[in-house]
Amino acid sequence: MGLDLNSDLGEGFGAWTMGEDASMLDIVTSANIACGFHAGDPTIMRRTCALAVQKGVRIGAHIGYRDLAGFGRRAMAVAPAELRDETLYQLGALDGFARAAGDRVRYVKPHGALYHAAAADAGLADAVVAAIREYDSALALLGPAGTQLEESATLAGIRFVGEGFADRAYTAAGGLAPRGTPGAVLDTDHAVAQAVTLAETGSARIAGGDATVTVSPDSICVHGDTPAAVEMARRIRAALGDAGIAVASFT
Amino acid sequence: MGLDLNSDLGEGFGAWTMGEDASMLDIVTSANIACGFHAGDPTIMRRTCALAVQKGVRIGAHIGYRDLAGFGRRAMAVAPAELRDETLYQLGALDGFARAAGDRVRYVKPHGALYHAAAADAGLADAVVAAIREYDSALALLGPAGTQLEESATLAGIRFVGEGFADRAYTAAGGLAPRGTPGAVLDTDHAVAQAVTLAETGSARIAGGDATVTVSPDSICVHGDTPAAVEMARRIRAALGDAGIAVASFT
Amino acid sequence: MGLDLNSDLGEGFGAWTMGEDASMLDIVTSANIACGFHAGDPTIMRRTCALAVQKGVRIGAHIGYRDLAGFGRRAMAVAPAELRDETLYQLGALDGFARAAGDRVRYVKPHGALYHAAAADAGLADAVVAAIREYDSALALLGPAGTQLEESATLAGIRFVGEGFADRAYTAAGGLAPRGTPGAVLDTDHAVAQAVTLAETGSARIAGGDATVTVSPDSICVHGDTPAAVEMARRIRAALGDAGIAVASFT
Amino acid sequence: MGLDLNSDLGEGFGAWTMGEDASMLDIVTSANIACGFHAGDPTIMRRTCALAVQKGVRIGAHIGYRDLAGFGRRAMAVAPAELRDETLYQLGALDGFARAAGDRVRYVKPHGALYHAAAADAGLADAVVAAIREYDSALALLGPAGTQLEESATLAGIRFVGEGFADRAYTAAGGLAPRGTPGAVLDTDHAVAQAVTLAETGSARIAGGDATVTVSPDSICVHGDTPAAVEMARRIRAALGDAGIAVASFT
Repeated sequence: MGLDLNSDLGEGFGAWTMGEDASMLDIVTSANIACGFHAGDPTIMRRTCALAVQKGVRIGAHIGYRDLAGFGRRAMAVAPAELRDETLYQLGALDGFARAAGDRVRYVKPHGALYHAAAADAGLADAVVAAIREYDSALALLGPAGTQLEESATLAGIRFVGEGFADRAYTAAGGLAPRGTPGAVLDTDHAVAQAVTLAETGSARIAGGDATVTVSPDSICVHGDTPAAVEMARRIRAALGDAGIAVASFT
Repeated sequence: MGLDLNSDLGEGFGAWTMGEDASMLDIVTSANIACGFHAGDPTIMRRTCALAVQKGVRIGAHIGYRDLAGFGRRAMAVAPAELRDETLYQLGALDGFARAAGDRVRYVKPHGALYHAAAADAGLADAVVAAIREYDSALALLGPAGTQLEESATLAGIRFVGEGFADRAYTAAGGLAPRGTPGAVLDTDHAVAQAVTLAETGSARIAGGDATVTVSPDSICVHGDTPAAVEMARRIRAALGDAGIAVASFT
Repeated sequence: MGLDLNSDLGEGFGAWTMGEDASMLDIVTSANIACGFHAGDPTIMRRTCALAVQKGVRIGAHIGYRDLAGFGRRAMAVAPAELRDETLYQLGALDGFARAAGDRVRYVKPHGALYHAAAADAGLADAVVAAIREYDSALALLGPAGTQLEESATLAGIRFVGEGFADRAYTAAGGLAPRGTPGAVLDTDHAVAQAVTLAETGSARIAGGDATVTVSPDSICVHGDTPAAVEMARRIRAALGDAGIAVASFT
Repeated sequence: MGLDLNSDLGEGFGAWTMGEDASMLDIVTSANIACGFHAGDPTIMRRTCALAVQKGVRIGAHIGYRDLAGFGRRAMAVAPAELRDETLYQLGALDGFARAAGDRVRYVKPHGALYHAAAADAGLADAVVAAIREYDSALALLGPAGTQLEESATLAGIRFVGEGFADRAYTAAGGLAPRGTPGAVLDTDHAVAQAVTLAETGSARIAGGDATVTVSPDSICVHGDTPAAVEMARRIRAALGDAGIAVASFT
């Protein structure tokens, strides 16, 4: 059994850059590529897709709210029908570049405020899943396990892939401990250790103690927005290798 | 042999509407649907694609400059490589909705300032054609005949479909007489007559006289932005029928 | 004592139009002019300000969320500090046009989803008021009475002007009955009558009965987005005149 | 007599950053602050204005085309009347933040493609100047000397301030040698030397030789988009000080 590593990429816009995409594409197996709504533009999308294919990394549509000014991080009252339309739009747009690069979009992952909203709201989760179904029912949905996103996907016959986080402690319920909580954010050493534990046992630490909770992610999300984040991702990848865990895309 | 009628549709944005799309979809055989750059949004794109398919009208990607404030009518110095990317983005986005409606995008038509720029500039025309080729080389390119767009498409093995205008007089060179020229814009009666003449003889009036020039369009562009425009389009369609000319999509 | 009539104007964008601004500027005494975030662009802002000044109508900054696609009608999680910045930006931008037209912005009114959010949330209301204070503490704030907007303005020493609606029934608490409620939306005859009653007695009907609630607005909001709405506004203005009520700006 | 140093600042957008604003505000005497059309957003505008005022740096409105995706670097066919409106909009918006910080906008400088277009086209230059006049005729216009911008400003009674470049060689006509030309871009040592020469003699090197041309700028534009650019700016400021040249704002 292998484990996938995913990361948010292609998040620049026009003259603005963000993240170390080229470095991260040497580390991860799945690239969540922004589609122009919260970040990304056609030129960046083409470049990121081409680089991903060249390095054997799977392409996912990182769909977001139409909010460049807020980077898709602000909750917005987008109605389910409109979300379905915006998902399909972004998915189709990215797939053109994936195909031009010789592959296809393989999965969808909601970004930022949409990630949280669709995890909690059945109507929004159904909307994302409906757009996936009408585009290509072979696509997977990547997101937080045990949420409406998983339920909507499963009910609709869409493959759901749950993701975990190496650098975050969990709650007893299996969710992420809020960033404010003591011990919620792990340092690099503990994150590397947690990645291996997640892969080997499917369990993660509960914030503020030694207890663990079962998470069993199929993919671990790593960040590449700072040099330190890239270094953490690199060490996670290496530690998984040292532990004999195959790192491979879920598709 | 038949003649195609095409029109620009789906040109609203959010709360703003433009044109009589439902009426026009009863008249035309090809719908140039805006893709969100100069007009259109995901919800409008879905609705317009669905209505087009329902009425048996072919869907084309009406690609434009990224300029909502200027409705794509302002010339912009977009480099060919970027235009290629923006074309592919819009094409892929619209195709998702066309497929959701049960059909596919069948052709591409540049809009507004891009229409004129790509007709005159080989680099830009090549960029549009390159995006078509990498997306689906079975797509046609709809535009002004005898221009760089036709040349680029032909050289690349992409089908080119030349369009004419019923309500505009021509120059001796086969181009449109500038709007300022006396006699450049025809009234409804003359436009209806010119549509039939274009279909029957392939010739159009030269502005300011009785001479004609050979144009031989495969499609005639009609407008639907005002009730008067819709009425003109309706009369053109009826007159073509009365003259025994089959009105049918070029695909 | 007089009563103000206000309306949302300048709500087109680029090639798209909305509302009958010229007609409405003959009816109202205060023009809530969109500032480019939910609607409006520099050219429309100039034109609307010039027409307002020419017709003796007061100019207000109709501030909204940065959401052209949603027309500012979608709730957005904009933090208070950012809202303060966005308010100041829109206020300054519109004031340039007001001054070019020979007057000044006289008041601020939140639009759409921001209207409701800032009425309910002290942090957001304080942010709007803070922007007003740092720009010009002589400006008034126009909005729903008895809300956080009124409280924040009053505490900060900013004049608050409460508005009422002629065509909407109220709740016993003095708020608007939700549109879904039976009797929530009044027809033109009842709206005209309610406008006069509001002006004469300060009371309005409670939805679904004959009881009334005290509202005492200083301004009544009328709409101009359809010919029927313009006609209602015109009849309201005439009925107020017939009843001997002076219609005049609150500034 | 002193010399002004100006730099483009506040060029981030939302989550994206650009340039070393805080460092540059310790070096320059005039800050060209983006106004939200090609870069900048309300929060960045507030922060940059506040920092500029705190450090005694004058605030200028760095107006640009409405083109975030192209960073205002792409030529756009914006009509003069619309440019006037867009200039007034940006000027008013920035002035709100300048006033909130305790100062005022003191000048206007066109950015990117607009800088070049308005320098060459009388209609566009007049439009920028007209917006300045209607907003505050005490504002200066900063731009390339000997161009339409200077002529339009002078004719309209608006103070014009010509700027030079330390790191660029000139043509015999006093314009900048195109970047492709051999010797067109100076290294740091030569740029530092040219800054001092410009200040002391008003002359600059002509690309590809030892000849010089009289330029006599009142301000020198320095860049802060890379650490190397900041270092060059710092050395220019120091060299001017060593040469006994007062560095001071032109206002």
